Amino acid sequence: MDRMFHVIEAQQFDRELMGEIFSVTKEMEEVVSRYGSSILNRRIMATLFYEPSTRTRLSFESAMIRLGGNVVTTESAREFSSAAKGETLEDTIRIVEGYADVIVMRHFESGAARRAADVASVPILNAGDGPGQHPTQALLDVYTIKKEIGRLDGITVAMVGDLANGRTVRSLAYLLARYDDVKLFFVAPEVVRMKQDIKEYLDRHGVHFEEKEDLIEVAQQSDVIYQTRIQRERFGDRIADYESARGKYIVDSNTMEALPEAGRVLHPLPRIDEIAPEVDGDPRAAYFRQAHNGIYIRMALLRMVLEA
Amino acid sequence: MDRMFHVIEAQQFDRELMGEIFSVTKEMEEVVSRYGSSILNRRIMATLFYEPSTRTRLSFESAMIRLGGNVVTTESAREFSSAAKGETLEDTIRIVEGYADVIVMRHFESGAARRAADVASVPILNAGDGPGQHPTQALLDVYTIKKEIGRLDGITVAMVGDLANGRTVRSLAYLLARYDDVKLFFVAPEVVRMKQDIKEYLDRHGVHFEEKEDLIEVAQQSDVIYQTRIQRERFGDRIADYESARGKYIVDSNTMEALPEAGRVLHPLPRIDEIAPEVDGDPRAAYFRQAHNGIYIRMALLRMVLEA
Amino acid sequence: MDRMFHVIEAQQFDRELMGEIFSVTKEMEEVVSRYGSSILNRRIMATLFYEPSTRTRLSFESAMIRLGGNVVTTESAREFSSAAKGETLEDTIRIVEGYADVIVMRHFESGAARRAADVASVPILNAGDGPGQHPTQALLDVYTIKKEIGRLDGITVAMVGDLANGRTVRSLAYLLARYDDVKLFFVAPEVVRMKQDIKEYLDRHGVHFEEKEDLIEVAQQSDVIYQTRIQRERFGDRIADYESARGKYIVDSNTMEALPEAGRVLHPLPRIDEIAPEVDGDPRAAYFRQAHNGIYIRMALLRMVLEA
Repeated sequence: MDRMFHVIEAQQFDRELMGEIFSVTKEMEEVVSRYGSSILNRRIMATLFYEPSTRTRLSFESAMIRLGGNVVTTESAREFSSAAKGETLEDTIRIVEGYADVIVMRHFESGAARRAADVASVPILNAGDGPGQHPTQALLDVYTIKKEIGRLDGITVAMVGDLANGRTVRSLAYLLARYDDVKLFFVAPEVVRMKQDIKEYLDRHGVHFEEKEDLIEVAQQSDVIYQTRIQRERFGDRIADYESARGKYIVDSNTMEALPEAGRVLHPLPRIDEIAPEVDGDPRAAYFRQAHNGIYIRMALLRMVLEA
Repeated sequence: MDRMFHVIEAQQFDRELMGEIFSVTKEMEEVVSRYGSSILNRRIMATLFYEPSTRTRLSFESAMIRLGGNVVTTESAREFSSAAKGETLEDTIRIVEGYADVIVMRHFESGAARRAADVASVPILNAGDGPGQHPTQALLDVYTIKKEIGRLDGITVAMVGDLANGRTVRSLAYLLARYDDVKLFFVAPEVVRMKQDIKEYLDRHGVHFEEKEDLIEVAQQSDVIYQTRIQRERFGDRIADYESARGKYIVDSNTMEALPEAGRVLHPLPRIDEIAPEVDGDPRAAYFRQAHNGIYIRMALLRMVLEA
Repeated sequence: MDRMFHVIEAQQFDRELMGEIFSVTKEMEEVVSRYGSSILNRRIMATLFYEPSTRTRLSFESAMIRLGGNVVTTESAREFSSAAKGETLEDTIRIVEGYADVIVMRHFESGAARRAADVASVPILNAGDGPGQHPTQALLDVYTIKKEIGRLDGITVAMVGDLANGRTVRSLAYLLARYDDVKLFFVAPEVVRMKQDIKEYLDRHGVHFEEKEDLIEVAQQSDVIYQTRIQRERFGDRIADYESARGKYIVDSNTMEALPEAGRVLHPLPRIDEIAPEVDGDPRAAYFRQAHNGIYIRMALLRMVLEA
């Protein structure tokens, strides 16, 4: 447990470390079921959010409180770097580390978490830095697959939707590459296909992947469908592109019929209409359980970085 | 104590249940006087506010903390349903229920609390949904009358001010109709008189009411004057209407002279000038005590929905 | 310890009371080093902020939590006095005092803390009211000088930068006047020189001061350089004035060479470029330690006003 101080990027987790994290995470599920623990009693977590992300913030805060810890919150950290005041991120971190024993940080710039970690004397947990990393989301996705399917080696995962802009699918690809005999299908509208850098990474690491067009055919051969939202905000004025991309791949009752009985549907949420509500009642719809796993993963990370 | 899970609307409280709630509320006053309890130790309350209402939010949070519980807060829940992300309220609830043991929700749409309760596996406490319900305010109003006057049966209450738009007077009318021999006076400017639906409800339930014009005459015959603010924001461009309504019925030292010695003045607050500051020092001015009762009522409700 | 209830302005602290506060503050440093105390267990602090000031708010919240207390927060207190609702500050205080055992208040108007204290039945701690007072900052500055230099009598302090608008230098001047043989240098661009009222105050209290132009010469004769930010927001359209003032006095490696070995550089933070980053590594750069002292000072004040 001495191999982590900061949590900055998916790439820092190898197979062995993920194994340790998932084992602590499992214990955390039991802690929640008996209404918490006091293991982090008197410790303070600061949530330093330069842009709002209420789900992620609440998930971390709930995790800290379940472990007996306390929280100080800011959702307006952008004030620190405002035009009038102009403080550097480094100065802000040097001040905030005096208020807390761990800092959970969300920033609008890629690489900000790394910069914070370079000066911080308390652990920095990256809760997303712009289009960059969101490592705790990636860990909870992998944990959910392990828990729902029972294994990670030999898994077949279909990644569906916005594969160009979605940082969750990119991080998930990195982490799944740590396991053996993983197979990935990419099912994306033309304008948001998986980018070349990830494909090259997978090639280098011997992960088999295929780009496919037929979601039903893919569903039949997959353990997991990882559906994602087409992100309206990435299309700007290209409304027609957005509209055509958006409706193309919907997970609905037809998709569920094709999916094996032991298969699962995941989604990082929020969803709009890329999973039909009719799917929610299917026991293979695992996306709300996946969201709840976020608490356990974050409890595990907090415990691992804070426990002396 | 097993008759409540969600707290959604005033109509769900009958005379007997209110009796139980008020009895627990009285215990809660003692709990606060000895600086709290640890009965809800390790429980988490999430405040999910789609519009700001700082008084109500702080009142619930203070109540939870006085019982030893913890709080995670959002005042920017509207982000969940933002144009870009477009999540349904139902999906949001399914996620947030993973972060907390009870959800206190404020929403801008009438009926939102009901929709939340329909999918939630944890208790939903409605802290106001648009022009709809605000049941905890209604309960604290009734509790205050009982505590200040000593009884609810046979009470005479003068409702003054904006009776058309004020949801507190509407809910209060519903709840007072549960008691015997209640008499109501309605004293309102022409443009904001009590609506027909409430009058019909009172007729059906045998509650005697009268519309009156002379506040002094009414004060002489009342146990309670329930004054309300003329809500500027409901008048839009009709400034003249607002100005004429606003100054019409002011509770001042003349009104207090008319009010019996055992009478009381209540107000849901905030007030502007519809109660003159000269009244504040009168022991019959009960509106700040009323606001403080909000803590005790909310402690009672939290305890009743959370205590196993 | 019975000489304080509210904390409103620097002038309320005489030499003896500061001695008591600093003695409790020192104890608080030990409390933090063993991860807190439970001395304020079950007590609630409300932060009532009419304008955002994340550093100050987090510092108070962390202080309260380190002592075992709890916090309810509002950063949107301005809502209370919004056009539509129009509540007076006095009414707001009468309500919020029902939610908490102590109120930490930040306001945009000079004198607001005094008005709040006049009606409050719980202690008010002023966390800054407009261009007026910010007494906890002043105390932490004096505490830092005492801790870093070892004494306050006979100290020589150079105040540099925006001496006209910076309320921290004004309050610091008031408090240092309580000690013997204090000498002050004022080093400021022409447009933001120290105002007449402070100079007269210092004259009346027998504090020696000199206005100087050469920062290097001043550094050689000082125990402390108290650098401040030229506040862009105070210059409005006068950009040229701002730009000429801003670059004039920078603390850099040349300044540090002139400063005695036992000297220190302080700054209330945030800084922009008025202290060069190259200075950060110098052990005499005390500004981040100074920021951390804010926690201890606020813990001491909370304990002193709350402990029965």
